[in-house]
Amino acid sequence: MDESHVGRTRRPTIADVAQRAGVSKGLVSFALNDRPGVNVATRRRILAIAAELGWSPDVRARSLSTNRSFALGLVLQRDTEIVAGDPFFPAFIAGVERELSPAGQALVLASVPSHGREADTYRKLASERRVDGVFLADLRAGDERLDLIESLGLAAVTLGHPDVASAFPAVSVDDIDGVIATVDHLADLGHRSIAHVAGSPEMLHASRRGAAFERACERRGIAHRVVDTDFSARQGAEATRALIADAATRPTAICYSNDVMALAGIAVAQRGGLSVPGDLSIAGFDDSEIARHVYPSLTSVATDVVEWGAAAARTLLAAIAGDELDDSELAPAHLVVRESTGAAPAPRRDTPS
Amino acid sequence: MDESHVGRTRRPTIADVAQRAGVSKGLVSFALNDRPGVNVATRRRILAIAAELGWSPDVRARSLSTNRSFALGLVLQRDTEIVAGDPFFPAFIAGVERELSPAGQALVLASVPSHGREADTYRKLASERRVDGVFLADLRAGDERLDLIESLGLAAVTLGHPDVASAFPAVSVDDIDGVIATVDHLADLGHRSIAHVAGSPEMLHASRRGAAFERACERRGIAHRVVDTDFSARQGAEATRALIADAATRPTAICYSNDVMALAGIAVAQRGGLSVPGDLSIAGFDDSEIARHVYPSLTSVATDVVEWGAAAARTLLAAIAGDELDDSELAPAHLVVRESTGAAPAPRRDTPS
Repeated sequence: MDESHVGRTRRPTIADVAQRAGVSKGLVSFALNDRPGVNVATRRRILAIAAELGWSPDVRARSLSTNRSFALGLVLQRDTEIVAGDPFFPAFIAGVERELSPAGQALVLASVPSHGREADTYRKLASERRVDGVFLADLRAGDERLDLIESLGLAAVTLGHPDVASAFPAVSVDDIDGVIATVDHLADLGHRSIAHVAGSPEMLHASRRGAAFERACERRGIAHRVVDTDFSARQGAEATRALIADAATRPTAICYSNDVMALAGIAVAQRGGLSVPGDLSIAGFDDSEIARHVYPSLTSVATDVVEWGAAAARTLLAAIAGDELDDSELAPAHLVVRESTGAAPAPRRDTPS
Repeated sequence: MDESHVGRTRRPTIADVAQRAGVSKGLVSFALNDRPGVNVATRRRILAIAAELGWSPDVRARSLSTNRSFALGLVLQRDTEIVAGDPFFPAFIAGVERELSPAGQALVLASVPSHGREADTYRKLASERRVDGVFLADLRAGDERLDLIESLGLAAVTLGHPDVASAFPAVSVDDIDGVIATVDHLADLGHRSIAHVAGSPEMLHASRRGAAFERACERRGIAHRVVDTDFSARQGAEATRALIADAATRPTAICYSNDVMALAGIAVAQRGGLSVPGDLSIAGFDDSEIARHVYPSLTSVATDVVEWGAAAARTLLAAIAGDELDDSELAPAHLVVRESTGAAPAPRRDTPS
């Protein structure tokens, strides 16, 4: 046994298979790589011996010969604290894995704290040939990653539609439907002044949800305002405090861009002596598991994030295989009504009647 | 330009550097790989040209020549829904990335739904040489992964100490201190009957926390019981309903093995007409961001999970480099007292005095 393998299980090589089969290494390589020109019976015998010896392809050697990495990349650029509170990425990754694992592909994950490091990370994934393609999440206005990734020669799939020209297929979930359904639900309950606690306006999905919220309110003749945040519970709580500070002008309902901020909002309202939903209706976004287990349970917008991950992975694998792909739309987001939204309180009598 | 590169940015090769420098490819390779025998001035000139051309090592070729993958693996075996509600892994991964990124290493992530698939996944990571080592999280009683991973020739680091012989270094956070501090805090507040809603007894950290809870209660002469769950909000809510169902026997305090279950527990108590902490004190575990933003804010046990990830990554990289390593202990978990725990209610007068 080769000394370098002391203390380790030695992997069988093509040479071992060739020796046992009494043929050349070249013939074994041809048989294992399913190339033409190998007699059927010989191929079968070589495959049987390879299986018996426990031979498996070394992905590094395979990737050098095919110029493929057999891996996909996901680069997250968010604060640790915000990622930790966000159920999106764990669910998305579970969906991605559902497709990658049977396809013999791996997921390479990188998380970076800043934009600068983000570009370096994509460059490194490409230059070291770590991955064949990447998932582009959290699209931003005028997202500079699209050009970067194209210039790096990587394949990609975008989650949602970018607002600039894109060389890559998009896999989207229409969350606008969920926003409209929330506003309609609150309008039907008699609310005439609604606030939206949005995510970062830098992120396309946040600004699009904000715009959809405003359009839906205008259509129903409802007074409205939008407050931007960084998606954290802390900023969700701060926005809520500001919104309810003045009893004369406070909205009777607030919808939030994620569940974590909505839960913080319920707490701020209760701490301020307001009943939810008696004095203030609150709706979240994500329909995370905890939404149905808090009191009052949280009305929220649900999307199938696991399926989104799976669909994005299928699309990216097809793109790497060279297929021409259309953009695809998954089932739209829908509203799940629970206890945290209710009838608007009776109008305040601020002036003597 | 080579046809295979049409539409892609062509990477500069060692041949390009050699041609520009007017030296042999072998000399360039020696210079770039920092091997002895290259004249200092020549090496400097070659490095300058390589930098100017934007040459970078192909990790696949580098890994074939060094027999290294320059990647570490993390295999998660938990339900998607439970992972999505758990702030542990996003924070842990952020810590891992903090060390891997500057070291030129990648993190390969796999999530599997069942034990069977888990072993296959480790085998595949090893046989395809995807990773040089793995992080072993969520250690189980008699964990069969330790033998498997040793037989696969992978390096590893365990998060916490296994209960079987291990060939791998352990990086641990003593969460027992946090459990004891919680029981002492509740005992000091006058509680004499406390329940613990634990995680799955299959997981070592859950059973160890349960045992520490029982010992701490016995030391303080406190009536106690432990209920096992799968860590989900749903089972946390169910356990709470069962614990408070009988007013005559219900505990006056419950501590939970994670914050998500504790939040669900607060909701069940409030829905059942109990005030938290007036009638029932509740403590969580994790000190997730939301803990400080709910009402009442949640008393919880905090550990530095990001630092745990970073320390585990440093240890695993050192193990792969062949260093002999001792187990390491990080700062122990500590209790963060907030509003959800308070003085025990006055004893019930069930019999006429």
